Amino acid sequence: MKIVQLEELRHFDPAKMRKNNIFESPRFACDLYCLEPGQSQIPHTHEGLDKVYVVLEGEGTFRVGSDESALEAGEAVMAEAGEVHGVANEGPDRLVCLVFLAPHPAPS
Amino acid sequence: MKIVQLEELRHFDPAKMRKNNIFESPRFACDLYCLEPGQSQIPHTHEGLDKVYVVLEGEGTFRVGSDESALEAGEAVMAEAGEVHGVANEGPDRLVCLVFLAPHPAPS
Repeated sequence: MKIVQLEELRHFDPAKMRKNNIFESPRFACDLYCLEPGQSQIPHTHEGLDKVYVVLEGEGTFRVGSDESALEAGEAVMAEAGEVHGVANEGPDRLVCLVFLAPHPAPS
Repeated sequence: MKIVQLEELRHFDPAKMRKNNIFESPRFACDLYCLEPGQSQIPHTHEGLDKVYVVLEGEGTFRVGSDESALEAGEAVMAEAGEVHGVANEGPDRLVCLVFLAPHPAPS
């Protein structure tokens, strides 16, 4: 039984948004996204793959489809397969999100 | 863009553990499990389906396979397809977990 403490995976990269994997299988991936102020995930699309973002800390500007909205800790949003999505941390605080993808994204 | 505030889905049932759905698709389900002290999810198994529990509030006793362990807020565990798993809230506080299943469980 592998117990993960999210705090131990809360790693940032000064160069770009960092994705820290928590768990994965062929059916899904569960990551902890850590964004310093000013960092972002460029809007993109996955065919046949859904993504859920749950904000754990800070505030982020999320885009899903043609909508854009600020989410803070305790808020969640889903990007369905084929919907363009991304997130930006416009600061001033660090942003930490729990992210679920299903199925597992193809290796890049 | 459907934004969900987890606090608004934090519903308990005095009779039994309550599963509050947050998002779902044929590829996954994302639920908020709310357990009053003394409530539990009886250990069970899903074939071909993985489950992740992330504790948001309180403390729970989780079983995965033959292991059992207490997890508190900020800790997470995964039950792989075919592994017996369950959770019990032995109290004294309420237990709230974010749960992710992939793919979506067959309708019961």
